Parts: sequence; C-alpha cells; structure tokens
Amino acid sequence: MNDFALHHRLAADTAFVADWPLSRVLLMEDARYPWLVLVPRQPGLVEITDLAAPDRARLMEEVARAAEMVRGLPHVAKLNIGALGNLVPQLHVHVLGRHPGDPAWPGPVWGHSPAMPYEPPVRAALIDLVRSL
Amino acid sequence: MNDFALHHRLAADTAFVADWPLSRVLLMEDARYPWLVLVPRQPGLVEITDLAAPDRARLMEEVARAAEMVRGLPHVAKLNIGALGNLVPQLHVHVLGRHPGDPAWPGPVWGHSPAMPYEPPVRAALIDLVRSL
Repeated sequence: MNDFALHHRLAADTAFVADWPLSRVLLMEDARYPWLVLVPRQPGLVEITDLAAPDRARLMEEVARAAEMVRGLPHVAKLNIGALGNLVPQLHVHVLGRHPGDPAWPGPVWGHSPAMPYEPPVRAALIDLVRSL
Repeated sequence: MNDFALHHRLAADTAFVADWPLSRVLLMEDARYPWLVLVPRQPGLVEITDLAAPDRARLMEEVARAAEMVRGLPHVAKLNIGALGNLVPQLHVHVLGRHPGDPAWPGPVWGHSPAMPYEPPVRAALIDLVRSL
C-alpha cells in the first residue's frame, strides 16, 4: 500500500518531470534557477530520518543524480541542496544551480523573492532535457 | 594520503565536536539554533557528487545521525538540512533545529542575521551532550 500524495503547495509550485525508483522529480516553476525537487513517494514522511536506512541511501543516490543533471546546465557555478520544510512539511529535497549574480546570490533562494514562471516552450524543453539525461 | 584541512571560515565560525568515520562534526557558534556542521575529511571536495558513492552513503548516515541528535534537543520542531557553499566552497552539510518563533522562521537561517555566541559553559555542555549521544 502506498498512499503517497503530493502536497498541494508542491504541486502548485512545480511541474512533473519523472518518477524515479524512490522519488517524484519535479521542476520548480522559477525560470531564474535550474531547480529540481525530489519527493520520496511514501506517505507521512517529514524528516530524512523518517526514511528507512536503505531508502536514505537511495535518496542520496537520486540527489546525486539530480545534482549531476543540474550541474551540467548552463550558468551553474555551484549547487545548493536543501531539505527545509518549514512551510511544506512533506519531505522534499531541493537541488538547484546557482551562480554569482543570480537574484539571491550569495544568500539562499528560499523565501528570497517571487518566482518567475517559465515560458511554456522553455519549461517543456527543460523537462525534456532532464528526462533525456 | 589525506591533506584535509578545515576551511578557515568554518574553523572561525564553529567549535570542534568530534571526528566521525567520514566527517568532522562541528558546532556552529550561534546559540540561537542547535546547529551541527558535517565536513567530510577529504581534500578538494566541493559538491556531494565529488564524493565516491560509498562515501555519499556514509555521509547520508552521518547526516541522519546528526539529525537524530538535533531532533532530540529542546525547542526543535523541524530539521533544516542543507549543503550550499556559496560563500565557503569546502563541502559541508548543515544540520540544525528550527521552531516557529526562532529569529529566521520560517525562512532559512543562512545569511539571515548575525550569530549570537554561546556562553562558554553552555557551549561546553552542548558539545558534551552531542559527544555522549
């Protein structure tokens, strides 16, 4: 049984990319940063310690896979990886690319400023690219 | 050979707690948040993808161990875990406890406001506590 359901706020702020073995992979709807969000597809998770150890290892490998993808995109000088959940308690891990001169640099992106939606063709192309990697 | 040396800024902002199998464990010098920092003791690491897969798995287990410790401290309603490195490129993972009403809540702590140093006996007691767990 798996009663996983994506938190409504994550659903509203992202576009679906793929389901990997453990996690749903989402693209954050903010064209200013290449930004994936991984959500392990198990109900009731809040902290990484809520995952069983083998699933934590899977999560790390999926984070690394997402990190390699983001690192290969243009204008990525540094990865930022974070699991915060102060506003959305459902366990989710941000994997995003930063560069000096981006709007929030060198501070964190979370809560910094309103997102800038993608142009639909750009969003579609980026999702295709991530799926193909 | 292991030419690991802690980045001078991490050294300046933290107190030594312990060396775990992979990571040096540090206490962030900010009495407002229970806050550990894990630094894998290998030279030249910037991103988690710079670690070999077995070491990534070790890092995840050490992050989970730190998370369990922090979660057990008073006034911890939510864990925040992050690897940013926009200012300090040496790979390091923050594991800290948050609660509604803390100075930066619900935003991220990084870059929010100046740290508040520990009173020495409080720092020592907290380090002893973490070492004993």
